Amino acid sequence: MRVVITGASGFVGHGLAKFLCSNPDALGKPVSKLVLADLTPRDADQGLQGFEGTEWHCGDLTDAAYLDSLLKEPVDCLFHLASVPGLAAERKPDLGWSVNLSGSMALIERLAHQGSEGVRPPRVVFASSIAVYGVLGPGVVNEDCVPRPTISYGAHKLMTEILLADLSRRGEIDARSLRLPGIVGRPVSASGHGSAFMSLLFHKAVAREGYVCPVSRDATAWWMSLTTCVANLVWAAKLDSATMPPSRLWQLPVLHASVGDIVATLADRLGPESISGFRFVPDMAVESLFGRFPVLSAPGAKAAGFISDPDPSALVTQVLKGLRRPR
Amino acid sequence: MRVVITGASGFVGHGLAKFLCSNPDALGKPVSKLVLADLTPRDADQGLQGFEGTEWHCGDLTDAAYLDSLLKEPVDCLFHLASVPGLAAERKPDLGWSVNLSGSMALIERLAHQGSEGVRPPRVVFASSIAVYGVLGPGVVNEDCVPRPTISYGAHKLMTEILLADLSRRGEIDARSLRLPGIVGRPVSASGHGSAFMSLLFHKAVAREGYVCPVSRDATAWWMSLTTCVANLVWAAKLDSATMPPSRLWQLPVLHASVGDIVATLADRLGPESISGFRFVPDMAVESLFGRFPVLSAPGAKAAGFISDPDPSALVTQVLKGLRRPR
Repeated sequence: MRVVITGASGFVGHGLAKFLCSNPDALGKPVSKLVLADLTPRDADQGLQGFEGTEWHCGDLTDAAYLDSLLKEPVDCLFHLASVPGLAAERKPDLGWSVNLSGSMALIERLAHQGSEGVRPPRVVFASSIAVYGVLGPGVVNEDCVPRPTISYGAHKLMTEILLADLSRRGEIDARSLRLPGIVGRPVSASGHGSAFMSLLFHKAVAREGYVCPVSRDATAWWMSLTTCVANLVWAAKLDSATMPPSRLWQLPVLHASVGDIVATLADRLGPESISGFRFVPDMAVESLFGRFPVLSAPGAKAAGFISDPDPSALVTQVLKGLRRPR
Repeated sequence: MRVVITGASGFVGHGLAKFLCSNPDALGKPVSKLVLADLTPRDADQGLQGFEGTEWHCGDLTDAAYLDSLLKEPVDCLFHLASVPGLAAERKPDLGWSVNLSGSMALIERLAHQGSEGVRPPRVVFASSIAVYGVLGPGVVNEDCVPRPTISYGAHKLMTEILLADLSRRGEIDARSLRLPGIVGRPVSASGHGSAFMSLLFHKAVAREGYVCPVSRDATAWWMSLTTCVANLVWAAKLDSATMPPSRLWQLPVLHASVGDIVATLADRLGPESISGFRFVPDMAVESLFGRFPVLSAPGAKAAGFISDPDPSALVTQVLKGLRRPR
């Protein structure tokens, strides 16, 4: 099968690409071609060796000619991960609109038109985000929570979810949207994610550098390791269409933990000196958007086979393993 | 103020245009220019005489050059009513996409870019639809119900609501979306509304023609007369921005009544022979989408000043008045 990953140079996209290169049968049917799409290729394909069928196809999702060439040959499965992250999109709203909304729509529209009679519609695994929810109350959130995005990134993700569900209903594509929590540990380079602090805790502890954390120790967030995230993306691609809800949407189960829980686990694993230079100076804007996540109940997604990192210890183990691995 | 109505040749748009021509001060500040936008002007401006500031500006919302010219001069208030109705959009999905989704987005994007420092952002009153809900359960629906559209028309309306809320949050526009129920009585000409039967009951009773109704007598729907709908649109335009919820969204209160209730009221008003040729032959697709509406509780919208037709008798009075008026 021909698989395309957009955002393949990103943290999650690269992780998924590496996994599929090592496990080309992971999607149920063998991957014959793995097309990696992003603005620029990453790191001379580090970690992508060993699978013959990989090719980079670089360009800009807002460029119609690029989309045409990316989708020139029929796609069996698209992982659509490319986006301008939340804070970056707030700073550059036109860029956010053109990539996260109109670029995504143009990509999806082309894919929907790819289909032909009797051929299975292309699968689309879409990386949506918990940014769709906006500010949540203190009560337990479940899968039926009404999303009220408070940043454009979240609004555009939500709109894309709705579009994908509708085109799936029409049989033009076969989509599954996953609402991803904060995936750790992203590279230190400022990516424009408002949740960057979640990853920086790990990097700074490993480097034994001090860190001024923009949320309090008590701040609670929804965490997921890259390994778990990739496993969920692959699982989503494999799910039988017949079992999909009409919304085509899964709120992934998450690890609900406080910053203090994670920092204590890091100290335990790396020694207390690893975090001795940490200070917690809450920025109320960041705290309210990214540090007030209540308990999440996602029984539907769990029953469908999606997983979370079970506890802070398991999360930290996975993340530290990732940081030590050459990337 | 400069006011633009898209879909001004449609049933609701024309009703609103006539009302504003007769009541140019209804929006709080006097309307100086009323720009009527649609594919073609309606009926040589019947009913639009008497107000100097009216002008038709006809074209296609999917044509970028038309949008540019429509919005060349700054707009104070846009009523965005134009759409390809639900059934028509199901039959012609590309047309539905280009008008209801990408055309609306292009219109709104241009309006959002109109703003300048210190100038109040343009108001947008958007005619959304109860089609956003999809199939509702039997329980009471309230304003926090999770929408799960089952037709593209509803999906595109929902996406547009989200976009308008986000741009309002950014201060680029000042939107208020209204989820409209079935507005009666639309002209007999097939408009592609799945809820056409709601209006046909009135037309056929007035004409004393038989009618094969595609839902059962017991089918329940959410009804609103054109007069009430126009009053709500005007009210939405006048609401103070400071009182608007972040969703910028109002589910209008509605008259919840069965087809049998309406038909009995028509018989009462027009004589039993007016409906003696009616037969009820439910089409399950129509019945499930348009004839299973549960009780709606909309206390928020009521508190904000939106209204419904109070009972079948009041609804029938308003609708019959409209049918007798030259249009």
